[in-house]
Amino acid sequence: MPISCPWSWDSSPTRARAAPAAWAATNWNPRPPSRNKMQLILNDYGLRMGRTHERITVTKDGKPVADAPIRDIEQVIIATDSASVTTAALAALLENGIPVTFVDHSGGVFGQLISPTDFGDAALRALQYAAAADGRGLALAKAFIRGKLANQALNLKYFAKSRARSNPDAAQTLNGAAQQIEAIIPEIQSIPGPGLDAARGSILAAEGRAAIHYWNALKTIVPPELEFTARVRRGATDPVNASLNYGYAMLYARVWSCVLAARLDPYAGFIHTYRKNKPTLVFDFIEEFRAFVVDRPLFSWFTKGGRPECDPDSRLSKATRDRISGLVLKRLATTIPYHGRDTKVQDIIQAEAWEIIRFLKQNEEHTPFIGTW
Amino acid sequence: MPISCPWSWDSSPTRARAAPAAWAATNWNPRPPSRNKMQLILNDYGLRMGRTHERITVTKDGKPVADAPIRDIEQVIIATDSASVTTAALAALLENGIPVTFVDHSGGVFGQLISPTDFGDAALRALQYAAAADGRGLALAKAFIRGKLANQALNLKYFAKSRARSNPDAAQTLNGAAQQIEAIIPEIQSIPGPGLDAARGSILAAEGRAAIHYWNALKTIVPPELEFTARVRRGATDPVNASLNYGYAMLYARVWSCVLAARLDPYAGFIHTYRKNKPTLVFDFIEEFRAFVVDRPLFSWFTKGGRPECDPDSRLSKATRDRISGLVLKRLATTIPYHGRDTKVQDIIQAEAWEIIRFLKQNEEHTPFIGTW
Repeated sequence: MPISCPWSWDSSPTRARAAPAAWAATNWNPRPPSRNKMQLILNDYGLRMGRTHERITVTKDGKPVADAPIRDIEQVIIATDSASVTTAALAALLENGIPVTFVDHSGGVFGQLISPTDFGDAALRALQYAAAADGRGLALAKAFIRGKLANQALNLKYFAKSRARSNPDAAQTLNGAAQQIEAIIPEIQSIPGPGLDAARGSILAAEGRAAIHYWNALKTIVPPELEFTARVRRGATDPVNASLNYGYAMLYARVWSCVLAARLDPYAGFIHTYRKNKPTLVFDFIEEFRAFVVDRPLFSWFTKGGRPECDPDSRLSKATRDRISGLVLKRLATTIPYHGRDTKVQDIIQAEAWEIIRFLKQNEEHTPFIGTW
Repeated sequence: MPISCPWSWDSSPTRARAAPAAWAATNWNPRPPSRNKMQLILNDYGLRMGRTHERITVTKDGKPVADAPIRDIEQVIIATDSASVTTAALAALLENGIPVTFVDHSGGVFGQLISPTDFGDAALRALQYAAAADGRGLALAKAFIRGKLANQALNLKYFAKSRARSNPDAAQTLNGAAQQIEAIIPEIQSIPGPGLDAARGSILAAEGRAAIHYWNALKTIVPPELEFTARVRRGATDPVNASLNYGYAMLYARVWSCVLAARLDPYAGFIHTYRKNKPTLVFDFIEEFRAFVVDRPLFSWFTKGGRPECDPDSRLSKATRDRISGLVLKRLATTIPYHGRDTKVQDIIQAEAWEIIRFLKQNEEHTPFIGTW
């Protein structure tokens, strides 16, 4: 019997989806002292977030659960509708420019507390809108997909290497698919411009061909009992797709915040045409990071015995969600070389968003993020 | 001794200004049953906003202060940092598209809880940015200022009429200034386009000349003990200017929400060039409404014995702030004829914001709001 697990991340956040009745823990993820910034995730019933002088405090039934200086907090994610917050805490977070994001039980962003100044750069957005027509939008679209494909190929070669002896057939399949994907990259570069409209079909077709190679190859390394037969983006009922969707949602919250912090318009993307209520720039930009931040740790977990589980209500279990968010947050906090400096992946995402700005303002080329081995 | 009253509304909301330690009351302004929508202002210490089924409830020390069906709430303004809110209430407000706005003690907006879909119309914003160059931006800029001047002239004639017998000299001054202002309106219409950059100086000069006539005339009807010698926009230390600034801040919160609800970019205005962190479209659009919504009721109050007062700490007293916000909110809830239908002023502001959209999308002319007698 297949595991029924109707857990999916809907890529279009809407107001209609409610936060869950209760989440069962607080994730408080302190980072290494070198940077000392942390993310606060409120996901347990009865928590109360307040402010005491220059600190954010979290209590439950009057007892302290966590507290930290405001300046050491990077982001607050509210993932329960059974907690409370003081207006003093919200005001302090606003004043310090710390994003407060509301996510529903599948990780979709349905609310964000913003300062008016978060959208304060109209001159930048004028450039963003102009870029759709002047060829720079096409250059960005190509860069996003180039980055996606390079990271997909890198993942396949990574999984091939560890199977070179133990499973040479699988290694050959993985390496072959990686080469197929790498062969598509120069095709993308040669798609003619400058207009986006004519080029879009070719870009999406190239992305689609790469996806077939990528997922077919990954399928071969997933244990059969997980019944991963095809990639399903929405309404997935199998544990692998549901896990991927949940992992992407964690990444999505980070990418969304980085785009906002850069004061770009999240809705004015380049690969996809403008559609109401679709943050197409977030959809574009996340493509650089999916494979490295989510696919790599999740497929490593699956191949090393990881078994995503469902609750009796057919949703990913709390333990599985915690495991997945732990894997993704750990990956985001991993330090890798970036422009010659050891940098956390989550900071690279922000740096890449700023690079989009430099491209729009100063025509400095946007080099897509490509992960490490 | 002049009344020292350093109360001003800074038109550039920043994160640096904190909400006050405590406000002394909850304003709960139910509207007539015809529409039955209300604004909830949390401005007292110790209030707790929660959700019970489909209702928003406000309690203090466990005792109910107010409650209402969620669908009957139009806007929530949080004006204290000594209250608390449940995440369930915030989620419900988000899901129902109800704006939650954080204002500081001078009424400046320093935070807004938004749904991602509040910014969901990139195609519209592309038109907004294009309008700055294609002549439609100039048409909007002219309309905003035309509306401003027409409403200023209307105010002067309104105050002249009631003085025709009691104070014919004042009436003559007021009517004369109104005519001077009305003479400037066709000048604005004839400023050549299509570019905004060349026209801006002429528009602002015309606005400035009208302002001199307007405030000089209004000065003559303000009781001398209020010592209103000139209009001061920021850092005002006299009670009339401080009162006006506070009243404009109340209006500003409404205009800001209407611009956001229309999914326009608040930062991409037309009269003023883009400046970082300056919501220039809000600054532009509010011009249509200042005179009718704020100046009229406040100067009526001053001339009928209203005396704005300061606390010992030299700020407008709580009673004065309540009086001013009461006057402005009452004015916003006033019903006047609009396109043949009796409509509340606050709904007219929203309708005018939608009219900007129709102008951008379908080239339907934006007719500025002009108040009634």
